[in-house]
Amino acid sequence: MLIVIELLGIFFFAVAGSLMAARRGFDMLGSVFLGGVTGLGGGVVRDLILNESPATFGHPIYFLPPVLAALLVYGFTPAIQKLHRLVLVFDAAGLGLFCMTGTLKALQHDFNPVTAVLLGMITGVGGGLMRDVISNVTPDLFNPRDIYAIPAMIGGILTAVCWNFGLFNPLVGVGIAALTFATRLASLKFGWRIPLAAGHWHRPTPGSPPENGPQRHF
Amino acid sequence: MLIVIELLGIFFFAVAGSLMAARRGFDMLGSVFLGGVTGLGGGVVRDLILNESPATFGHPIYFLPPVLAALLVYGFTPAIQKLHRLVLVFDAAGLGLFCMTGTLKALQHDFNPVTAVLLGMITGVGGGLMRDVISNVTPDLFNPRDIYAIPAMIGGILTAVCWNFGLFNPLVGVGIAALTFATRLASLKFGWRIPLAAGHWHRPTPGSPPENGPQRHF
Amino acid sequence: MLIVIELLGIFFFAVAGSLMAARRGFDMLGSVFLGGVTGLGGGVVRDLILNESPATFGHPIYFLPPVLAALLVYGFTPAIQKLHRLVLVFDAAGLGLFCMTGTLKALQHDFNPVTAVLLGMITGVGGGLMRDVISNVTPDLFNPRDIYAIPAMIGGILTAVCWNFGLFNPLVGVGIAALTFATRLASLKFGWRIPLAAGHWHRPTPGSPPENGPQRHF
Repeated sequence: MLIVIELLGIFFFAVAGSLMAARRGFDMLGSVFLGGVTGLGGGVVRDLILNESPATFGHPIYFLPPVLAALLVYGFTPAIQKLHRLVLVFDAAGLGLFCMTGTLKALQHDFNPVTAVLLGMITGVGGGLMRDVISNVTPDLFNPRDIYAIPAMIGGILTAVCWNFGLFNPLVGVGIAALTFATRLASLKFGWRIPLAAGHWHRPTPGSPPENGPQRHF
Repeated sequence: MLIVIELLGIFFFAVAGSLMAARRGFDMLGSVFLGGVTGLGGGVVRDLILNESPATFGHPIYFLPPVLAALLVYGFTPAIQKLHRLVLVFDAAGLGLFCMTGTLKALQHDFNPVTAVLLGMITGVGGGLMRDVISNVTPDLFNPRDIYAIPAMIGGILTAVCWNFGLFNPLVGVGIAALTFATRLASLKFGWRIPLAAGHWHRPTPGSPPENGPQRHF
Repeated sequence: MLIVIELLGIFFFAVAGSLMAARRGFDMLGSVFLGGVTGLGGGVVRDLILNESPATFGHPIYFLPPVLAALLVYGFTPAIQKLHRLVLVFDAAGLGLFCMTGTLKALQHDFNPVTAVLLGMITGVGGGLMRDVISNVTPDLFNPRDIYAIPAMIGGILTAVCWNFGLFNPLVGVGIAALTFATRLASLKFGWRIPLAAGHWHRPTPGSPPENGPQRHF
């Protein structure tokens, strides 16, 4: 069952990656590639840090979701007006699933809980970060109007706590993923924020996001 | 003989990397570094995914081609008008060699053919992708007017097919590399393309390449 | 004692990363993340190339310096006018420490001296490079008015030479780090440079740094 969940998460992220490719004017292969990086990148980095050959490359089935995502985006781009919101929902679903599975895998490898939560967060946000870095845009992860990493952290911490108290089972895992998903959507809906990196000062530099008041993404 | 071919491929890619450094106004060390990343980056990522210490770091000789490439670019920049075309030819030669050797190495590690072809493509396009990402430009790989990844895929698939039918030998390998090289040059010459990521719609965003008709690179 | 030095180096780099986050308008989590990447990224890449699970993920204490650095930057940003110079000093201290420890670790893994020096340089400059690439700016490493990589190379070579002649001990290591630090500060103060990648020609392209004479960073 875990593999079905993983494939779903990869697909959700891959759709977000392919939509980025569509918006940037890349071609079909770029769409598959960027979808693959978004969907599989976080897990590959996690497995490299766990010092094992990435599971992704062990079976061809992991590369099916990016292909399907690219075809889906190719076929349904007329419905493009609804895309930005849809991407965020897909992305939140992938985030919920990956933080939980990433933390779980690190705990199964006997990593300490702090590091396991970090690896779960890397699994969740790594693919999207790689998508943005490769596409040459400022990563969404750093958008100060959007607390992307907080739901990821909550999902990871809940997984680690449940695991440490022997309460973790697949159903609990799905619940944690759903809660992470809901937290992410709520953060978008209500525009939750955390303080900026600079405490009492901020001078916008070219390339940094403008600061003209709150702006809802959702 | 394989090592001579590898060193040639590294050199070809490194020249492309050093020329990027020259165009961006970097200095000599940046030129060596960017050449090294372009020439060695794809192979390093491949070896990390194969979960072994990158062959590149096993012997100092692998670092000679980037140094030579940087010196060559330093010495012959007056002939700069011809560079853009020359870079593409060098790059195509490196691509042909690396897709074949990368796929081969993955097959020798008992990876399945699909994954092996992907690793071959990563070996071929990874260095150039890292060059562009590090130089902070939109990767050439995603240029919709240029099907960089298709020749790489053809080279990888031919290698996997020959290997599976027991037909692979060094001569066949060189032939596959030459065919990949020729396909790449032909794609440049005739402006071959594949469909965009967005099927029926495309709105250019800032930073995406303009869409005013076909444009020959070659 | 080595771990205290490592933690100090991580902290120095993390401050530079958090300051970048402050300048770009990222939030607190982005500040911790970017500080962590700057402080830990070079070592993680080194360990991946050495084909072992990154030491960073073995103990939670390695993640303390980025958190402290982010809090420091958050609390003391009113003193922002002095920051640019301060970042460079912190960064130079981290560079001095990491080139030495990185080269040392590679030598202890029986890598050849050339590769060990390269891995030391990667340890020293890798985190800053990742910081700039992730922040979507042209890496400082390639600034032709600033020879960042030369002090790193000197630190690595001195470490390898001392090691090969059996002269290396912790005190010598600290001395090498201090010398690297001093070389870096001197290169900033006196505006030392090396030749550009292009020998007799340079046409600035959009995005490349302007070329209107020497400019002191320090």
